[in-house]
Amino acid sequence: MENTMKAARIHSLGSPLELENVPLPTLGDEDVLIEVKAVHVAQYHTAAMLRTEHSLNIYPPTFPAILGMGGAGNISQIGSNVNGFQEGERVVINPILTCGTCEYCMDNRPGLCDMWVLHGYYALYKPNGVPLLENYPGGFAQYVKVPARNVVRIHDNIPYEQAARFNYTGISYEALKNGGFRPGMTVLINGSTGVLGTEGVLLSLAMGAAKVIATGRNRERLAKIKELNPERVFTILLGEESIVPSIKEFTDGKGVHLYLDTMGSVAGQESPIQSVHDCLDGLKKGGTAVFIGSMQNHDVKYNYEYYIGNAIKIMGSVWYNNQSLSELVNMAAAGTLKLSNYDTKTFSLEHVNEAFDFADQRTGGLNNIIVKP
Amino acid sequence: MENTMKAARIHSLGSPLELENVPLPTLGDEDVLIEVKAVHVAQYHTAAMLRTEHSLNIYPPTFPAILGMGGAGNISQIGSNVNGFQEGERVVINPILTCGTCEYCMDNRPGLCDMWVLHGYYALYKPNGVPLLENYPGGFAQYVKVPARNVVRIHDNIPYEQAARFNYTGISYEALKNGGFRPGMTVLINGSTGVLGTEGVLLSLAMGAAKVIATGRNRERLAKIKELNPERVFTILLGEESIVPSIKEFTDGKGVHLYLDTMGSVAGQESPIQSVHDCLDGLKKGGTAVFIGSMQNHDVKYNYEYYIGNAIKIMGSVWYNNQSLSELVNMAAAGTLKLSNYDTKTFSLEHVNEAFDFADQRTGGLNNIIVKP
Amino acid sequence: MENTMKAARIHSLGSPLELENVPLPTLGDEDVLIEVKAVHVAQYHTAAMLRTEHSLNIYPPTFPAILGMGGAGNISQIGSNVNGFQEGERVVINPILTCGTCEYCMDNRPGLCDMWVLHGYYALYKPNGVPLLENYPGGFAQYVKVPARNVVRIHDNIPYEQAARFNYTGISYEALKNGGFRPGMTVLINGSTGVLGTEGVLLSLAMGAAKVIATGRNRERLAKIKELNPERVFTILLGEESIVPSIKEFTDGKGVHLYLDTMGSVAGQESPIQSVHDCLDGLKKGGTAVFIGSMQNHDVKYNYEYYIGNAIKIMGSVWYNNQSLSELVNMAAAGTLKLSNYDTKTFSLEHVNEAFDFADQRTGGLNNIIVKP
Amino acid sequence: MENTMKAARIHSLGSPLELENVPLPTLGDEDVLIEVKAVHVAQYHTAAMLRTEHSLNIYPPTFPAILGMGGAGNISQIGSNVNGFQEGERVVINPILTCGTCEYCMDNRPGLCDMWVLHGYYALYKPNGVPLLENYPGGFAQYVKVPARNVVRIHDNIPYEQAARFNYTGISYEALKNGGFRPGMTVLINGSTGVLGTEGVLLSLAMGAAKVIATGRNRERLAKIKELNPERVFTILLGEESIVPSIKEFTDGKGVHLYLDTMGSVAGQESPIQSVHDCLDGLKKGGTAVFIGSMQNHDVKYNYEYYIGNAIKIMGSVWYNNQSLSELVNMAAAGTLKLSNYDTKTFSLEHVNEAFDFADQRTGGLNNIIVKP
Repeated sequence: MENTMKAARIHSLGSPLELENVPLPTLGDEDVLIEVKAVHVAQYHTAAMLRTEHSLNIYPPTFPAILGMGGAGNISQIGSNVNGFQEGERVVINPILTCGTCEYCMDNRPGLCDMWVLHGYYALYKPNGVPLLENYPGGFAQYVKVPARNVVRIHDNIPYEQAARFNYTGISYEALKNGGFRPGMTVLINGSTGVLGTEGVLLSLAMGAAKVIATGRNRERLAKIKELNPERVFTILLGEESIVPSIKEFTDGKGVHLYLDTMGSVAGQESPIQSVHDCLDGLKKGGTAVFIGSMQNHDVKYNYEYYIGNAIKIMGSVWYNNQSLSELVNMAAAGTLKLSNYDTKTFSLEHVNEAFDFADQRTGGLNNIIVKP
Repeated sequence: MENTMKAARIHSLGSPLELENVPLPTLGDEDVLIEVKAVHVAQYHTAAMLRTEHSLNIYPPTFPAILGMGGAGNISQIGSNVNGFQEGERVVINPILTCGTCEYCMDNRPGLCDMWVLHGYYALYKPNGVPLLENYPGGFAQYVKVPARNVVRIHDNIPYEQAARFNYTGISYEALKNGGFRPGMTVLINGSTGVLGTEGVLLSLAMGAAKVIATGRNRERLAKIKELNPERVFTILLGEESIVPSIKEFTDGKGVHLYLDTMGSVAGQESPIQSVHDCLDGLKKGGTAVFIGSMQNHDVKYNYEYYIGNAIKIMGSVWYNNQSLSELVNMAAAGTLKLSNYDTKTFSLEHVNEAFDFADQRTGGLNNIIVKP
Repeated sequence: MENTMKAARIHSLGSPLELENVPLPTLGDEDVLIEVKAVHVAQYHTAAMLRTEHSLNIYPPTFPAILGMGGAGNISQIGSNVNGFQEGERVVINPILTCGTCEYCMDNRPGLCDMWVLHGYYALYKPNGVPLLENYPGGFAQYVKVPARNVVRIHDNIPYEQAARFNYTGISYEALKNGGFRPGMTVLINGSTGVLGTEGVLLSLAMGAAKVIATGRNRERLAKIKELNPERVFTILLGEESIVPSIKEFTDGKGVHLYLDTMGSVAGQESPIQSVHDCLDGLKKGGTAVFIGSMQNHDVKYNYEYYIGNAIKIMGSVWYNNQSLSELVNMAAAGTLKLSNYDTKTFSLEHVNEAFDFADQRTGGLNNIIVKP
Repeated sequence: MENTMKAARIHSLGSPLELENVPLPTLGDEDVLIEVKAVHVAQYHTAAMLRTEHSLNIYPPTFPAILGMGGAGNISQIGSNVNGFQEGERVVINPILTCGTCEYCMDNRPGLCDMWVLHGYYALYKPNGVPLLENYPGGFAQYVKVPARNVVRIHDNIPYEQAARFNYTGISYEALKNGGFRPGMTVLINGSTGVLGTEGVLLSLAMGAAKVIATGRNRERLAKIKELNPERVFTILLGEESIVPSIKEFTDGKGVHLYLDTMGSVAGQESPIQSVHDCLDGLKKGGTAVFIGSMQNHDVKYNYEYYIGNAIKIMGSVWYNNQSLSELVNMAAAGTLKLSNYDTKTFSLEHVNEAFDFADQRTGGLNNIIVKP
């Protein structure tokens, strides 16, 4: 192995990435080195990272820095205290870096750790985890170093390009689990044409939802969501069709068991908070809402008496642990989770900035934007 | 058995009850007749029922009507199709009457049934269940008829006066269960000096809470709550002590696992909704809030991003099923649930109106107001 | 409505049923009358009921008696105290009759009630429930009376012939739920070619199992089970293929998450208990076995240390409640549970004895034997 | 800090430990060094380790080796990649060492990891984890090195001597959780006078069990268990009192909700397997048995039909994760788990062999045998 590798680094906020030769990462005792085969580019966080206009309260690593959240590839080198991995194994990274010792880490809830950061991106809200970011540069490189406990094996029948996408699928999966998803339920996905929303639809179908009600703002994209399973997917075109009456129509007037909200504010568009309030009114008695979208500075309002009288539960869900990632991988390998529905757009490491440009167009959750070193 | 009995009936809203001789109830195939020994008078609903000023959207039975929610006593007569009960058995009534066949009844969630009414009181929000109210007059009488499936046996060491009170204890118990209570948790009870709040404290102690943080507006009553277990109960005097800093102080800065809100609006007092918002800010990451109080026309507001970032769950809980009532009875019989903490105020059926007057004074949850025919 | 109806009655154990005119049932306050459209004939219990050779410790109703477990049809008449049903509604019966008031009934676990009997058949182990059998004659008749709480609505797109079969599907469904089934698991069904086993396969597929490993003694029937989903179903031909090595081969050496045993002793064949012990050895660490078959006088043996070292759970599951039946109905209506896989064999009420003869041939779980009055 | 420390090492199986000066452990990136204040000596495993007669299939580290399972003390030094700990913090060790990356480690179930070993003792059944044993010598030393993820903070009001004992308490706690313990249950502890059994009694009381039925072979020790809570603890003296009739007597004929078996074979005594079979017959319908004792070469037998008819669940539980250990610590700090019931026997490191001699006398679970360096 050479001592250097190619990597795409950012030198200042807002500037494009530059392809450079950098030293190979040095492994700690518990780390593994992965030869990167594919990294997924999300349509939301990239914008937040690279462009000047965003409202997120983020803390990046010191520049220059290698970006790229997680990734899929092959184990290339193993730290001295790592057990259970072999060189050459195919793996995917869970890109949440945490302290590993706090009460939430002990409880397998990494998204609640005070130090958590998104590998290859930033710390959110507070800078505690910036040292983790700096110790573990991102995946836009030939090789990436992560703690062995952030790595999950993938089956031979799962392409790297699809595995890389699990970094987002995991969020939707954990949310459905947290919300008490059970086969036979009717699930509402608000924002089904975005990445998290599309995953929510695919997962609900894979896990035996009776019906999936999917909202979206774009007629064409929503039609593609419908095509995923015309018998079980029902759509609501936001702005044209009213949410509550449509839900009632699809559910014999009863409402949905589970509502997954994946909506995000988009600069220059009207806030989606009204759709959240409408969707809450579409919950069946005893129903549950789970939030995983991104909406800064918005309060969710729900009547105190309705909470009680309808036994409603509203909750947030944050990231996912390796157990969930591993379950996802199993569903993909079994074919119940249909990865073939994705339209994968591949960019080489040299063209990583074009991948970002493409992501900025927010072309919808069925597009899987991948950078391949 | 005589063909008539004494009962306290109401003839119009706002008028006092009148003691009268009325015919004994006629049993349906599935009903039991109970010789009433004690009926609990709640400090909240009575006011709503008997006084003219209230904001509840209630539907009473046709007047004259026998009031009295549930009650404890002895089985006196058994319907032709009832199995499993013997004359003379000591029992307590679960005072929620339901259709018995809808999807929620099938799922043992009576409080979600579209027909549910509170036995001896009223239908809430919609009139569907008024026929149930009229078929099953209340407990302020020598005898009361209820469906056998609304009845739970009580042990010999549980006095009728304490068993009657379970009609409210059940609400707090179901809420703690729904909220995921586990031994070792720290529990916050907002409104601990009311009936539901006091039950919440006693139940949390019985079930092994590490700490109970109890709020209240009345210094003396709150001091009595503290005395229930000075080592494990911590108090916050509303209006004098700030909620969030106090919670942080009692929890090493971390917040509570579970927050049970039992607050009710009181005419002429400031709305307690601010205390709800403060208590929500006292939740630990991953924590849960459960509402069982009564606050008309108030929205609970909680930030969309906080839901996610802190993995917060907010929910309502409504009433309880017989399984929960039966578990309560077991805890009381075992002595883990300390009923001896109650100060029981007993009124004869002749003095039922005085019981209401006393209840209207809202003297606090450690008072157990009982009518004995 | 006439005062009489046609019904198939048994006059003594071992004798054929006779088609007779009998009085219409008289409704109790809580009962409904159903115009019967289809009754499922199980391949196991019928033999036990009608033939002289069986080892079950059963208590039949007084003869003559109308047989027929549950059934599907239309609500025809409604008891005076029944809420929530309308004449003409399409329904299916949950054929377990219980006391309705004991601690297990309160907990929605009807199969643990001391009085439970199978409607239209018998009491098992003890005679407590024989009065229920006699009050509620079986479904081989133009009309059948059952308590309203034993009835669940069915959607218009579910044929009566398929709904009637749910009386057995419910057993497998409840068992999978009790065993902690989750989408993505690998499930082993021992005895997949029988009625309960076939249901186990169909349900596991509907609910998103990654793999289903199905055993059976009959090569042709097992091949049909494989055809239900060639990618996800893997078969083991008992007597020819070894259980443990096959399981290991299908699971990368790890074993199964969940094992559902539906095996029954068959007179004249070798006991299937050895297959149970083999299947237990095919459990993954942390795995669960659930028994719902029928094997008299057989002990299951499992090593004390293996229980601990492998964190194994072995359990039994008995019948199902209406909530589960209702969930089943939803999955069938949604099409995730594929009822079209059944080969329905229909017999008129006049030919009910031929239905039994056919059932005695034990032709496999994909045959759905139906009697239509 | 010196470069050497005192430690008690074993040089060959069966020989006494020798107090020696050895080098301080060298920390890996993810390790912490703890100044040892107390190490608990179990009454079972020590015998297995040091004496020649035992039937366990164990793999010790290469000799000489430092023994001592886990321990409590102060953080003294911190590995370069450790987050979240400070020097001087008071902590307790979870003494199960694992690979940290397998599917079971990802699911927070360390006892199922293929590499798991007991720190300071041995690998069981297979030698995979021996390298972990050798990398992490035991706690009978002035300092001990363990991975940071094996360490949990303890409150100031928990003495080291009591915290060290949690290494066993955790086993009983995890088992009660796995078995579905809920406040208000009646719990049976078979073998209540041993270490795990006594913990089971104390934990059940702390968490609000209605009744605890405790068996034991020694009259005096069993009397002390009764004294822990005379109102809620009921005892059965094995050999003199029959198990099933006694359980029925204590439970109104119904049996127990949850049965925790902690029995161990003792050389020269009759096998306790018969008591296990009797206790299984003392389960209530729907009840659960959890095994955590030690009985080599014994099959548990339970009738196939009884599993179903009584909806019985039998399971094993193995070790515990840090989340459970952390919950335990909270209950001890709160005082619900009464540590003051222990009679602590303290031995200095110089007298460690006397601690073993004392442990070999198997003086009962209320004795807490502690070595203090």
